[in-house]
Amino acid sequence: MTELAHDDEENARHKIKAAKHKAAKDKIMATKVGEKGLLIVHTGTGKGKTSAALGMVFRHIGHGYPVGIVQFTKSPEWDTGEARLLKTFPDLVTLHIMGEGFTWITQDRERDIAAATAGWERAKEMIRDDRHRLVLLDELNIVLRYDYLDLNEVLTFLRDEKPADKHVVITGRNAKPELIEMADLVTEMTLIKHPFRAGIKGQKGIEF
Amino acid sequence: MTELAHDDEENARHKIKAAKHKAAKDKIMATKVGEKGLLIVHTGTGKGKTSAALGMVFRHIGHGYPVGIVQFTKSPEWDTGEARLLKTFPDLVTLHIMGEGFTWITQDRERDIAAATAGWERAKEMIRDDRHRLVLLDELNIVLRYDYLDLNEVLTFLRDEKPADKHVVITGRNAKPELIEMADLVTEMTLIKHPFRAGIKGQKGIEF
Repeated sequence: MTELAHDDEENARHKIKAAKHKAAKDKIMATKVGEKGLLIVHTGTGKGKTSAALGMVFRHIGHGYPVGIVQFTKSPEWDTGEARLLKTFPDLVTLHIMGEGFTWITQDRERDIAAATAGWERAKEMIRDDRHRLVLLDELNIVLRYDYLDLNEVLTFLRDEKPADKHVVITGRNAKPELIEMADLVTEMTLIKHPFRAGIKGQKGIEF
Repeated sequence: MTELAHDDEENARHKIKAAKHKAAKDKIMATKVGEKGLLIVHTGTGKGKTSAALGMVFRHIGHGYPVGIVQFTKSPEWDTGEARLLKTFPDLVTLHIMGEGFTWITQDRERDIAAATAGWERAKEMIRDDRHRLVLLDELNIVLRYDYLDLNEVLTFLRDEKPADKHVVITGRNAKPELIEMADLVTEMTLIKHPFRAGIKGQKGIEF
């Protein structure tokens, strides 16, 4: 067989396989007709939990949909790329960044609990507010893990008061099993390789 | 012991623990001094690979850093939120969206290879161009998996021609082991739960 004939045959084989694949995929996708406000959780020790949530936030902004964001732990870098960009869309973005920083930075449990409680009050307002199509509760899992907020209170609110068409995205390692159970979409970001191990620090645009 | 005294004691205990935690973390972070253009891979079957890459893209835009993007597989939805938003930053964003769609949509292997090759040529230009601080090669893993591009050619280029201070982010399932080996930062997005299984379709702002 010449090389050309071999290529033709391979292309023809590919076409049949691709057609079958497409038919199977179309059949599956035809059953996916519902729209629903999702409870989304990004957890795991890998990088990308907040980044992926921001990707969805910016997709919403691209479509002109208003979003609400509560950052439950302040980044050590206050001047983040996301905050800069989000602030250029004041009509679409409601942003609440907790002023108190992270527990092992502040070393003050009472102040952390007060800040978490204030953040959760803002989160509830944003979730109830019909204007927001998506609400991001960044690093809420950390706050829940340290018991700075009552897990049952959070779960009960999400179950009973989240409007049916609203997306809520919750990020942070160590998501509580009860939250995973309630969620519609859960992704675990798994660390395969991280440059911190090679002595590389967090970099502008990558980590913040 | 009164409840108040108990709270005081718990807070004091927390303070000591948090101080130790902070000291340990500071010590580790003090060793992270390097800056380096990273080769980043997002793979796995979970959601969030492209979203997390977009999060980094928008962080860069927030900092005013130019970025280049090649989308190697066209989304079934051409009118994505990310494309809409990216196009509002023409000074910062160079965007190349492959016009040919996905293999099981086009069912034409030769056309797919031509489109992949054209995309890779643009990718090389963007990576060589000093202006871009980050280049996103979205779904390049899929193209490599179908052997539409030569893996060795891609790896050799990344090894020999990627400028030392440039970040390159590659997304898509089934990343080649040789690429993972070469990368600095690899995250696997693991599917824990997906609403497609409950009959929910891809939604605006979430999937596109």
